[in-house]
Amino acid sequence: MQRYFVNKDQIRDNIIKIDESDSRHITTVMRMDIDDLVSVCNNEDTFLCKVIKLGKNVELEIINKIDNNPELNQKITIAHGLVRREKMEEVVRRLVELGCFQYIPVDMKKSVVKGKEINIDRINKIIKEASEQSQRTRLMKINNVISFKSLINSFKDYDLILLAHAKERENLNLYKELKIKNVKNILVVIGPESGFDESEINSMINNGAKLISLGKRVLRTETAPLYIMAVLSFIGEQYED
Amino acid sequence: MQRYFVNKDQIRDNIIKIDESDSRHITTVMRMDIDDLVSVCNNEDTFLCKVIKLGKNVELEIINKIDNNPELNQKITIAHGLVRREKMEEVVRRLVELGCFQYIPVDMKKSVVKGKEINIDRINKIIKEASEQSQRTRLMKINNVISFKSLINSFKDYDLILLAHAKERENLNLYKELKIKNVKNILVVIGPESGFDESEINSMINNGAKLISLGKRVLRTETAPLYIMAVLSFIGEQYED
Repeated sequence: MQRYFVNKDQIRDNIIKIDESDSRHITTVMRMDIDDLVSVCNNEDTFLCKVIKLGKNVELEIINKIDNNPELNQKITIAHGLVRREKMEEVVRRLVELGCFQYIPVDMKKSVVKGKEINIDRINKIIKEASEQSQRTRLMKINNVISFKSLINSFKDYDLILLAHAKERENLNLYKELKIKNVKNILVVIGPESGFDESEINSMINNGAKLISLGKRVLRTETAPLYIMAVLSFIGEQYED
Repeated sequence: MQRYFVNKDQIRDNIIKIDESDSRHITTVMRMDIDDLVSVCNNEDTFLCKVIKLGKNVELEIINKIDNNPELNQKITIAHGLVRREKMEEVVRRLVELGCFQYIPVDMKKSVVKGKEINIDRINKIIKEASEQSQRTRLMKINNVISFKSLINSFKDYDLILLAHAKERENLNLYKELKIKNVKNILVVIGPESGFDESEINSMINNGAKLISLGKRVLRTETAPLYIMAVLSFIGEQYED
């Protein structure tokens, strides 16, 4: 079933007013009919709805709330050395599918791309589309580029900070950390194309980050977030059902 | 250190003759000097070498064999419903990084792309580049497109056949299968963009495939192979070191 994300102010009583872009999608792209069913998320709850008005300003009627939570128990934030736009967009799209809570691009010493702002509107559109497609109920958060210093300052907000470092071959027992210690708020830091600067690694370790391996092969900067997110979601979900 | 794959017939005694394409890379792209170090794989062993001749026909001298095996203990084959070329190339590149043994595109009922041959030379070039970059010692195998019937016939060649099916919510205990039962030769079957046909699912289950979940969200056909490959490599490697 097609899913759409709406803001809370689009819902009044049991009627949802769809914006122009999604109205076009429902009417022109999906060619829906009156009474067709869709699911709608307000970033908190999910509703089963039927189409009651088509055209430029589609309206839906809520049939009932859906109790199906595809979100991970852990909130996983990926802090990623700033990479080129196409790579970042690809990573963002896949991280949404894999259940990531938040993505933070970080200006690191060896980042090829330097100190640029990112196009948050464009990224948010990608996040919305990927969330609808992957049937998530919460939109992944996206930050504008932060400095390395701000990243270090944010360490206090997390229960566990993982530092993905290619040279490290000793695995932290992630299963134990996640399931037995029951951490809820995890930050994973991943370097840009050319990796971390040695001073950055030292600074992160001194501030409590734990080294983890991403396996025995060298992963590209755009593959590393997908690897760790797949592994963390697998550990988080495999005994839940 | 830069890595290059060579054929066995390029090695004679302790001298390796590099082909024109890699010679150009060493001389023009990497701008190496005489005595610079590189690692060379013949798809079996890895050697530390030094450059002894530059130009169009680079020659290397073997210093010693390197004992560092980044390959997984399990041979993991991904059979993937035939997808568009760009998607397949992207998947192939990342599967190499994640340690995949073999990739087989399969002509499935709902494949959008139909019965086409794939450009094996082009894919093999991508595999070689990704293997050099990720420091693998074995090139991932690639098959030309096979029929669904051939896929079923090949089931007998594997110890474990996993069927990634989005609707399935009961997890097979992959950890137990891989570590305790100690399977060596694993096939994972993943559908094309529109998923499997119901008859294909039934046929695979009747022939011994076990259903696995890819988590609670709906993954795209090009994300699913990366998820399962990351998870399987994590399980295979996490207690090895």
